[in-house]
Amino acid sequence: MNSNQSGNCDRTQNNTFAEQPIGIFDSGIGGLTVLREILNLMPRENMIYLGDTARVPYGIRSSETVTKYAMENTEFLLGKKIKLIVVACNTVSAISLDTLKKKTDVPVVGVLFPGAEAAIRSTRNRRIGVIGTETTIHSSAYHRAITSLNPETEVLGVPCPLFVPLVEEGWTDGEVTRKVATRYLEGLKESNIDTLVLGCTHYPLLKGIINEVMGDGITLIDSAVETARVVGEILKGAGLLRKNDAPPERKFFVTDSPDRFRKVGERFLGHKIEYIEKVEIPVI
Amino acid sequence: MNSNQSGNCDRTQNNTFAEQPIGIFDSGIGGLTVLREILNLMPRENMIYLGDTARVPYGIRSSETVTKYAMENTEFLLGKKIKLIVVACNTVSAISLDTLKKKTDVPVVGVLFPGAEAAIRSTRNRRIGVIGTETTIHSSAYHRAITSLNPETEVLGVPCPLFVPLVEEGWTDGEVTRKVATRYLEGLKESNIDTLVLGCTHYPLLKGIINEVMGDGITLIDSAVETARVVGEILKGAGLLRKNDAPPERKFFVTDSPDRFRKVGERFLGHKIEYIEKVEIPVI
Repeated sequence: MNSNQSGNCDRTQNNTFAEQPIGIFDSGIGGLTVLREILNLMPRENMIYLGDTARVPYGIRSSETVTKYAMENTEFLLGKKIKLIVVACNTVSAISLDTLKKKTDVPVVGVLFPGAEAAIRSTRNRRIGVIGTETTIHSSAYHRAITSLNPETEVLGVPCPLFVPLVEEGWTDGEVTRKVATRYLEGLKESNIDTLVLGCTHYPLLKGIINEVMGDGITLIDSAVETARVVGEILKGAGLLRKNDAPPERKFFVTDSPDRFRKVGERFLGHKIEYIEKVEIPVI
Repeated sequence: MNSNQSGNCDRTQNNTFAEQPIGIFDSGIGGLTVLREILNLMPRENMIYLGDTARVPYGIRSSETVTKYAMENTEFLLGKKIKLIVVACNTVSAISLDTLKKKTDVPVVGVLFPGAEAAIRSTRNRRIGVIGTETTIHSSAYHRAITSLNPETEVLGVPCPLFVPLVEEGWTDGEVTRKVATRYLEGLKESNIDTLVLGCTHYPLLKGIINEVMGDGITLIDSAVETARVVGEILKGAGLLRKNDAPPERKFFVTDSPDRFRKVGERFLGHKIEYIEKVEIPVI
């Protein structure tokens, strides 16, 4: 009787918990490519997105600063009673994920491990390329993640600092971007890799050009797609997928320039941003 | 007797004051092009440079946020007992200069008015182009400054968001940058301007390519050169040029990533950065 009551109670609690939103943060708008894939896979979920646009970009900052900002963003999302946190930023995933996991009782999913696992599943010749911001590549975090899964894999990292500004400018196609991509990727192309990880959330918007430059023989790993898959598995495994049929809530918070976020962000997200609010993130 | 004493005292005070450094700040490394021109013109001066690299770039932030950061940077420099402040950032000069002037008793020189004045002196057909970050151009501050000097002048502003990342990547020459410049500048080239203001402190490093794309008929106005000239005039007029022959002090403060600042910054400055320190800017 007691155990039955407790079982009912757990189920009720679980149903309430399942209603709570998924929290997702990034330094800016890049994480919207991850949100997009999560919404594709789990369109019923309530979502809260935080873009720390007052302090973007994280990719050029020191590790210490990145972790400080990431902890502040996490505290903000925990205050919104989220059921799971997605760190939709490669730089933070590369540097600060362990620190964030220690701070919170809800699951924390980064974009790095899902991408690393997919790369290991994809490669045949155990030669994997990774492209990302300077900080992500120089942290060697992808190298560590991939070789922890299979030590006999060779990982070649190349920073592509101009890709983010090109995407934000909307130049996701055309001659200039093709030439920039050719210059960044020519070394990787000649290095006999068979798999390339897009290690920055902006890069899915350049998939067409990257694919064109690298050629069909090389499999591109889109961390956004892989991360959405892992989020789905965790929520399903814990019985925390939302079951309610009421329309889901999607709220966007930014620390600066909501108009610019909306304008550029709708291109990343692929649909309208209705609710957006500028907030101050309390400094820890 | 009394007046003589007072005169000696003033002169002594003035000499002491002249020893104090010029303070200069920017959101990052761009302002080093301004510092470079000041050092060219006044090599004896003591200098303190603050690069707010933890919060760079300002050019994509809201006006409110830019002014808040600028006020915090100004407080930091005033704490170092500087004799004059140079706002070596077009975004701040465009948005926050009046607020900063109200806050301080030492002269505050922005990069915007010196550039606007030089453009007015240069133009023959009263058609002036201005290039800069999105925030600088959309603020219309150059337009206001130039037309306040001569209301019959036509001002055409074009934002060039990719120029800053290209310069920071070190791609100040070559095909990609030439194509980007051609795309941004083609409208201005056809618009019959005779003078073009480089309204961003990074752009002097692209002078070669911009000149090549625009052609010889168009005079480029380098705000860094013009600002240094105005600083010299103010200090000379107030009898505050340093007279001491002892080697001058040059100190650099940054809010994040001193190693990256030193590496990229020495290219901007044209010589070694010896003393560099990471600091926390107190939030107002």
